[in-house]
Amino acid sequence: MAGFHVHSVLVTGSNRGIGLELIKHFIGKPNPPEVIFATCRDPEGTRAQTHVLSPDTTDPGSIKAAAKKAEAHLGGSGLNLLINNAGIVSPSTLESATSEDMLSVYNTNVVGPLLVTQAFLHLLKKAAQGSNQKGMSCSKAANVNISSVLGSTEKTPETFFVPVVSYRCSKAALNMLTKCQSMGYKDAGILCTALHPGWVKTELGSDEADLTVDESVSGIMKVLCNLSEEHHGILVTWEGNTLPW
Amino acid sequence: MAGFHVHSVLVTGSNRGIGLELIKHFIGKPNPPEVIFATCRDPEGTRAQTHVLSPDTTDPGSIKAAAKKAEAHLGGSGLNLLINNAGIVSPSTLESATSEDMLSVYNTNVVGPLLVTQAFLHLLKKAAQGSNQKGMSCSKAANVNISSVLGSTEKTPETFFVPVVSYRCSKAALNMLTKCQSMGYKDAGILCTALHPGWVKTELGSDEADLTVDESVSGIMKVLCNLSEEHHGILVTWEGNTLPW
Repeated sequence: MAGFHVHSVLVTGSNRGIGLELIKHFIGKPNPPEVIFATCRDPEGTRAQTHVLSPDTTDPGSIKAAAKKAEAHLGGSGLNLLINNAGIVSPSTLESATSEDMLSVYNTNVVGPLLVTQAFLHLLKKAAQGSNQKGMSCSKAANVNISSVLGSTEKTPETFFVPVVSYRCSKAALNMLTKCQSMGYKDAGILCTALHPGWVKTELGSDEADLTVDESVSGIMKVLCNLSEEHHGILVTWEGNTLPW
Repeated sequence: MAGFHVHSVLVTGSNRGIGLELIKHFIGKPNPPEVIFATCRDPEGTRAQTHVLSPDTTDPGSIKAAAKKAEAHLGGSGLNLLINNAGIVSPSTLESATSEDMLSVYNTNVVGPLLVTQAFLHLLKKAAQGSNQKGMSCSKAANVNISSVLGSTEKTPETFFVPVVSYRCSKAALNMLTKCQSMGYKDAGILCTALHPGWVKTELGSDEADLTVDESVSGIMKVLCNLSEEHHGILVTWEGNTLPW
């Protein structure tokens, strides 16, 4: 993991929970990124060059403005790693799910990541082109979408006790989006992977969850370090295991 | 197939394409349903008792009104078979997909079926309770969602040449919804299945498609006739083959 160096990283939804912890872990690396884009206040001073962007990831104009700002900060370099982490959940059963809830959750969890990747794509491409590394990796160019086992249709019988129908549908769609991105951005050398962070004690995951946010993110950091072609277009867990769609 | 008798069926989106052809095939059966609910003009007179409902399947109030009307027509009986066929597609690539397109397609293709099944659920339950048939079947009580191989994340590498990202994401979510419905409605005895109709020469499928609408619907009718517990919570093709999620 010591050899794992990402020049620049952007994490959406980093004002709390897994996103905030990811920023902290990147800052705390022995070799932190030169440029970190967070959507939160600078959590630990300026050990790494942390820039705060504040896009509303459901607003195309706001996302484009953030990408322009990021481009200026990068000063001619590309963006190595984009982590689409922003997401919401709300309780919903087959009986209680409403139109408003379904559309709102889909907007944040699927349309947001789509638009963010669209806006930063030229920077990811620049990072891939500017790299002399062979193969695919997060230190070259990668788009990681934070998904969930709850978006695995195959695994639903094991997880159906969690009443979040609108969230499940959105994450199944995000998995599909990730697969499409893996097809569309393969030739550009951008690694595209969906990642299940585990069931984490956050505002989103609740106190009943299995993992502390530090346990989850420690696992995620190891997974990011090891991601390669073999993880392109698949759904992996915070422990590096593959999940079915 | 002669023994396959459905007392009552409702097909959404039956003003054209596969939906209209399904209505025609049901009417043309040697033993047609006693009650057919179509969302189209009566295509062939009154050989079967065809009732036209005109819900906007993205409008909860309009769907509930249609369910009330259907309940009155059924005169105390339940609804055996609900086919959520209404759907839209629009060209969209990873680059061109917009927020509006993503939300609009999701609204029609996922939220619509969710709301329709919510509104007709008590009638499907009534049909299941009122039946003395063992096991699950379309002649007892079933909710069939017309999905697509394009919603199979696993199969995406084979179909990625079709540039319909918003449609793919919506159908992946619809597959998840179907799986959730299969979990939630199992104890009520309602068969829940997602169905890929093939690539059909319709307004939605275009003239380049493989199958005529008659070929597709002839296959679908056979599949409906044979659906049982083993198809509960899976995605099957118009030829009766299982597709991965």
